[in-house]
Amino acid sequence: MDVHHGMTGITADQLKQAHDADLAIQGEEQVTFEQAWADPDSGVVYCLSEAPDAAAVQRIHQRAGHPADEIHPVPLTI
Amino acid sequence: MDVHHGMTGITADQLKQAHDADLAIQGEEQVTFEQAWADPDSGVVYCLSEAPDAAAVQRIHQRAGHPADEIHPVPLTI
Repeated sequence: MDVHHGMTGITADQLKQAHDADLAIQGEEQVTFEQAWADPDSGVVYCLSEAPDAAAVQRIHQRAGHPADEIHPVPLTI
Repeated sequence: MDVHHGMTGITADQLKQAHDADLAIQGEEQVTFEQAWADPDSGVVYCLSEAPDAAAVQRIHQRAGHPADEIHPVPLTI
């Protein structure tokens, strides 16, 4: 799970464009972005992915132009 | 999406117990908890729910014994 801050006012189109930019290159790092959720009011965006490690996720996000502010492996899920 | 901090060392069983405690009473606030993800190393837990508002989510979490540290409506999803 990674988190972006400062995305205040993000629109559905902008979220889709950012997500598509990740999807376009994610295979190069064996990352699969699964879902993303955004709160335009507070500017927080959460992205859930399957990935070898946090660094791989960050490399994709950086190359796509939107580095994450936090990345937390979430080995437990329910 | 709500976030809990300070859950360092949380186990799969503890996550399930906490989630089950939410599920047991969520209907009283028209909340539906969908998924939860935990990072035992950093102690962060994310919970995704459908709910009337953030306050309803917090009431359930408080009554279940684990108030959230942050709750962000996430009207945009992809």
